[in-house]
Amino acid sequence: MSEQTYPSVKDLTLEEKASLTSGGDAWHLQGVESKGVPGYMITDGPHGLRKSLASSTGETDLDDSVPATCFPPAAGLSSSWNPELIHQVGEAMAEECIQEKVAVILGPGVNIKRNPLGGRCFEYWSEDPYLAGHEAVGIVAGVQSKGVGTSLKHFAANNQETDRLRVDARISQRALREIYLPAFEHIVKTAQPWTIMCSYNRINGVHSSQNHWLLTDVLRDEWGFEGIVMSDWGADHDRVASLNAGLNLEMPPSYTDDQVVYAARDGRIAPAQLDRMAQGMIDLTNKARAAMSIDGYRFDVDAHDEVAHQAAVESMVLLKNDEAILPLDPSAGEKIAVIGEFARTPRYQGGGSSHITPTKMTSFLDTLAERGIEASFAPGFTLDLEPADPALEAAAIETAKTADKVLMFLGLPEAAESEGFDRENLDMPAKQIELLRRVAEVNPNVAVVLSNGSVVSVHPWAQYAKGILESWLLGQAGGPALADVIFGKVSPSGKLAQSIPLDINDDPSMLNWPGEEGHVDYGEGVFVGYRYYDTYKKAVDYPFGYGLSYATFEVSDISAAKTGANTASVTATVTNTSAVDAAETVQVYVAPGKADVARPVHELKGFKKVFLKAGESATVTIDLDERAFAYWSEKFNDWHVEAGEYGIEIGTSSRDIAATVSVELDGDGKTQPLTEWSTFGEWSADPVGSKVVEDLTAAGEAGKLPKLTDNAMMRMFLNSMPINSLPTLMGEAGKDVTKFLLNGYAELNK
Amino acid sequence: MSEQTYPSVKDLTLEEKASLTSGGDAWHLQGVESKGVPGYMITDGPHGLRKSLASSTGETDLDDSVPATCFPPAAGLSSSWNPELIHQVGEAMAEECIQEKVAVILGPGVNIKRNPLGGRCFEYWSEDPYLAGHEAVGIVAGVQSKGVGTSLKHFAANNQETDRLRVDARISQRALREIYLPAFEHIVKTAQPWTIMCSYNRINGVHSSQNHWLLTDVLRDEWGFEGIVMSDWGADHDRVASLNAGLNLEMPPSYTDDQVVYAARDGRIAPAQLDRMAQGMIDLTNKARAAMSIDGYRFDVDAHDEVAHQAAVESMVLLKNDEAILPLDPSAGEKIAVIGEFARTPRYQGGGSSHITPTKMTSFLDTLAERGIEASFAPGFTLDLEPADPALEAAAIETAKTADKVLMFLGLPEAAESEGFDRENLDMPAKQIELLRRVAEVNPNVAVVLSNGSVVSVHPWAQYAKGILESWLLGQAGGPALADVIFGKVSPSGKLAQSIPLDINDDPSMLNWPGEEGHVDYGEGVFVGYRYYDTYKKAVDYPFGYGLSYATFEVSDISAAKTGANTASVTATVTNTSAVDAAETVQVYVAPGKADVARPVHELKGFKKVFLKAGESATVTIDLDERAFAYWSEKFNDWHVEAGEYGIEIGTSSRDIAATVSVELDGDGKTQPLTEWSTFGEWSADPVGSKVVEDLTAAGEAGKLPKLTDNAMMRMFLNSMPINSLPTLMGEAGKDVTKFLLNGYAELNK
Repeated sequence: MSEQTYPSVKDLTLEEKASLTSGGDAWHLQGVESKGVPGYMITDGPHGLRKSLASSTGETDLDDSVPATCFPPAAGLSSSWNPELIHQVGEAMAEECIQEKVAVILGPGVNIKRNPLGGRCFEYWSEDPYLAGHEAVGIVAGVQSKGVGTSLKHFAANNQETDRLRVDARISQRALREIYLPAFEHIVKTAQPWTIMCSYNRINGVHSSQNHWLLTDVLRDEWGFEGIVMSDWGADHDRVASLNAGLNLEMPPSYTDDQVVYAARDGRIAPAQLDRMAQGMIDLTNKARAAMSIDGYRFDVDAHDEVAHQAAVESMVLLKNDEAILPLDPSAGEKIAVIGEFARTPRYQGGGSSHITPTKMTSFLDTLAERGIEASFAPGFTLDLEPADPALEAAAIETAKTADKVLMFLGLPEAAESEGFDRENLDMPAKQIELLRRVAEVNPNVAVVLSNGSVVSVHPWAQYAKGILESWLLGQAGGPALADVIFGKVSPSGKLAQSIPLDINDDPSMLNWPGEEGHVDYGEGVFVGYRYYDTYKKAVDYPFGYGLSYATFEVSDISAAKTGANTASVTATVTNTSAVDAAETVQVYVAPGKADVARPVHELKGFKKVFLKAGESATVTIDLDERAFAYWSEKFNDWHVEAGEYGIEIGTSSRDIAATVSVELDGDGKTQPLTEWSTFGEWSADPVGSKVVEDLTAAGEAGKLPKLTDNAMMRMFLNSMPINSLPTLMGEAGKDVTKFLLNGYAELNK
Repeated sequence: MSEQTYPSVKDLTLEEKASLTSGGDAWHLQGVESKGVPGYMITDGPHGLRKSLASSTGETDLDDSVPATCFPPAAGLSSSWNPELIHQVGEAMAEECIQEKVAVILGPGVNIKRNPLGGRCFEYWSEDPYLAGHEAVGIVAGVQSKGVGTSLKHFAANNQETDRLRVDARISQRALREIYLPAFEHIVKTAQPWTIMCSYNRINGVHSSQNHWLLTDVLRDEWGFEGIVMSDWGADHDRVASLNAGLNLEMPPSYTDDQVVYAARDGRIAPAQLDRMAQGMIDLTNKARAAMSIDGYRFDVDAHDEVAHQAAVESMVLLKNDEAILPLDPSAGEKIAVIGEFARTPRYQGGGSSHITPTKMTSFLDTLAERGIEASFAPGFTLDLEPADPALEAAAIETAKTADKVLMFLGLPEAAESEGFDRENLDMPAKQIELLRRVAEVNPNVAVVLSNGSVVSVHPWAQYAKGILESWLLGQAGGPALADVIFGKVSPSGKLAQSIPLDINDDPSMLNWPGEEGHVDYGEGVFVGYRYYDTYKKAVDYPFGYGLSYATFEVSDISAAKTGANTASVTATVTNTSAVDAAETVQVYVAPGKADVARPVHELKGFKKVFLKAGESATVTIDLDERAFAYWSEKFNDWHVEAGEYGIEIGTSSRDIAATVSVELDGDGKTQPLTEWSTFGEWSADPVGSKVVEDLTAAGEAGKLPKLTDNAMMRMFLNSMPINSLPTLMGEAGKDVTKFLLNGYAELNK
């Protein structure tokens, strides 16, 4: 290779290096064209390409972008539990990037849905980091398999919109490691996203853009990240501090490259660090070079629409289906009424930086027309925030009266959820629910189809509907996908990626939501979503992992076997016991037994979606690695697997466990050395310490040292005491006891 | 005064100063006898004197102490809501100290009952800091009115027993200031306890004994504390660090005064700081000198027993009284069965350092005999942890069958709760509840009398009892006090000082209880007890402030008036609308409106217990100072009263509010200067900032600066942006806007 084409940072001047660490404009890298480093375009995702028509000017008009396939946002796609499908979505997005000469598409966003009110929940994946990581990795791997980059975002702990540019997320190390970082960690370790986008917020006092612990210690040194880190748009407030922390790229440019040059000259940035950051930018452009060199490429619009269609089919979750009201069968002469403006004007994506101009748009009504399915229609309500329209309502009720079955399309209007603000409650619009109630009065055969980006309360109105199909936001092919499921061409197979609570006040993060005075305390620690509801035995409306099918399944022949000291493998047979082809998702939860820390009663550590024809069976094997059993120990500052028995639950939701098997693990053998701050109880329980305690007891019996108390309560006091506190119980002689223990221990550990 | 008797620290050698900062033995100060500083005795309370017989040797046998009146522990006394009565208890304890030559009695303990499982809840006061402070201050003022000192403990945040010698309580500044410190603060400011005892635990990483922020910045500099701080027994781990932080006295002695001398010599302790700490010890002994010089004093054992009796009467809380089962009327010929070993062997105090040898002990059965009240008795069960005894049970059931009414004495055995360990659940012993169920089967007229130090679950068995009298631990005169209430000589008047939850898992502190790996996160922040249940609208079994009476009351004529910019006064009339003399406690809760931080829906800020004869009325006036409306602002690092409307609720429990009146406060006028980190929304809302924004808008219209967006969503984005982020929205020109705002603001603030 010629140096002209693939320069090293060694070939660049200080000024050129500095310029690489900032964008050229709002949506382009700043290349060094003279030395063969191109200034490629990078632009928004994450569920399709948002390439602004006005991109070169730096203006931000979110509705003005080139047409691109609009896939279901993550709220829907995450319900698919189908990483292969998600991989296909990624491949398709990459092809659109190649056509549009976009080197990096900004996404996926894998922040945890800490609280369902979070304004960007529609574009995040799950309340569970295992699920989020194992689904979203499909986007990263899929896009990058075509030579286009992704930007895994928002790193890290950007779990709310309120005050997001400043808020300090105060989170324990354990909650960070177990809840807020693992989705990033899994994707970095298995798919090496070319880029990561740091979040706006601070974590424990430090802006992510300046967080050396986050961007260097954890991301690069621990996880082995090989790509570059860019700032979220406007998240870089101090180029020097950010470069030193490990941020390669400021976006958009603040045109302060000269400050970087000065800082490098006077030593505030070490030359090696600036070289590392700039070399990362060169490496990034080199990775993109092949795909960006393809000219005249046109992606297959129809094929991508079909991917969007399939993704939409698998995004829907059937919550309720009393009397098997779904699927509807128009061929059986049933008269169907369709009520709700959403059937005609679908809500198919969220607001903000992810807002896409779709290549096509097929509503449910369009699909009915295309497929020649007869149904009456009444909009019932408007999609704005205006009060109910009596005329629309009356017409809807009349329409419902004349039908055998009513499909009601309800949902959140676009203004209800977006990047930029958090929701204030989980309520559905009152006028829609009132109409539903009145429709159900005249026609009890109602199935509701929901369109919403993040969780809405269902139980306040569930009594009016025999069926409830949660369709989230389905992207541009929602119409045909809905028709497939509603009319039974395909069985629904989605499973909830987040719990649906009975009341938002049941969510423990509500005690610290959305924070105040510039900070938010993650007081619930690791007890997020089902980890809280299931551990504390709180009722929910629909549990994590839940979703009905038109088919029925049996999970049987469940067994687990150890595959190593701290690893195991689980096997189960899944049988479709119905006459309907369908898919079931087997979920594996690890349930630790007694532990040194407060652990969730169970955590998702594996899943597998299985497509089974009517009557068909399949055997599923899921491997559990050491991490599946570990918790993050602040004591060891590391993952820790305790020895002992672990339950392994196999089920079809977090609350539908078919069976629990167990394995006895060896543990990782980590121990802490005893010190004067270890309690007498800890000394007595330690393999070495207990020997010294035996000697001490003997010395006490022999009258050489104080005799240990045999009063039960005093013994309990003793056991709880660090041995440096023994004089409090024993007087002056306690000092001799402490010395005896420390010396004896040192002797045995020689 | 002669220098011989009242020396100053100036008269002492370095060695003598050092020696003053440590005890002489486990229960004595280390005086400098040659210079007239006596080594007075200091010993345990807090609900009576525990002067160990073996005190001079430093041994700790908690059951071996001189006889002293055992008053009801704080769990009971706190239910009295009667500071005057508590003051009398303090006076009585002081008299016993004078007889026993004890200069300081160690108590009261005013730590907040963060979680009802806390092992020392029986000797703490409340889940509410206002109530804890305004009750326990009576002990401090009462004791000290007789020239004897108190030791307010455990300062601070010692809210659990688990790992209490090491645990790091990680608590927000706001929760510390609003929940965990105010009881200490109120007592320090209004009663100046002679001593304060620091806690074992750490707070945000620093042991209380070494916590300069706690012992000096807050306690002395902010609150004006004039006394000395001693360590809890064994809480001082580094004499030098502790002295520097503001700890005057190490207890018990570690005999390391030489280390203090070396540290003073080589400058690790500043001479002035050692002088301050030692002078505090001289001042303390001087305060005690008068009372300690009284020889041959004998306290009136019977009179103190009567104080204990009255205190016990007011400690009981009547939880349930269906069909007015209580009071019982033996004179009406009712046959009464008394069942339960507790009637014969009362549980009247808790375990640990507060365990007292009482001067008398009168059980309920003793009182029945003394008063000639006939009743059959069956113990029913043993007070140990053994399984049920079928013979005892059968006898109890036979006894119940022959009676008209059954009094069942149930409770927690002594082994169930003590200093030194936390409880694991709120359950009553299963064998007692099973016996209750079987007794209720044969005789439905059951009233239960509960003996327990901290909350037990009631609702699982409440259906078996028409009456439930929560008597907590009643001290040595529980027998006559119970008889007074049970037979109607006195109406019960106690009110709950803590909520009784339906399920311990409803308590938000359960997510971080009792912590792990050496720390405990106070993740619930300020939402402790009713502050959580009432704000988040969660059902409880019995709410804070609740308690029934044999009388009925009406609270009427409620009004509030402003008495200053941020103060108010509330007046109400309380009428005893029954034919029974009794007391009612009027409670005042402040309900802030919309606030900048998440505030509890209401907080107790005043109360008044009123004794009213049948048919009598009284007018109650309660003043609310500025603090009553304030929250602790981390932004201002100070208390803050926002301007606006505040609700003032007057009621008889946190969930029985007779009326809400409101006042409009001016606010304290605190504002934060605008900076580049203030959002555009904050600039627009600020009185000065909004003028600059107006000028900016005009400049935009005039084409001199970028025009501000009028797209609603973009405007929302803009409002949420710190103005240093404007270039992200506006490109390079955003810098000019930021500069325009900052310059304009500086100009107007000149």
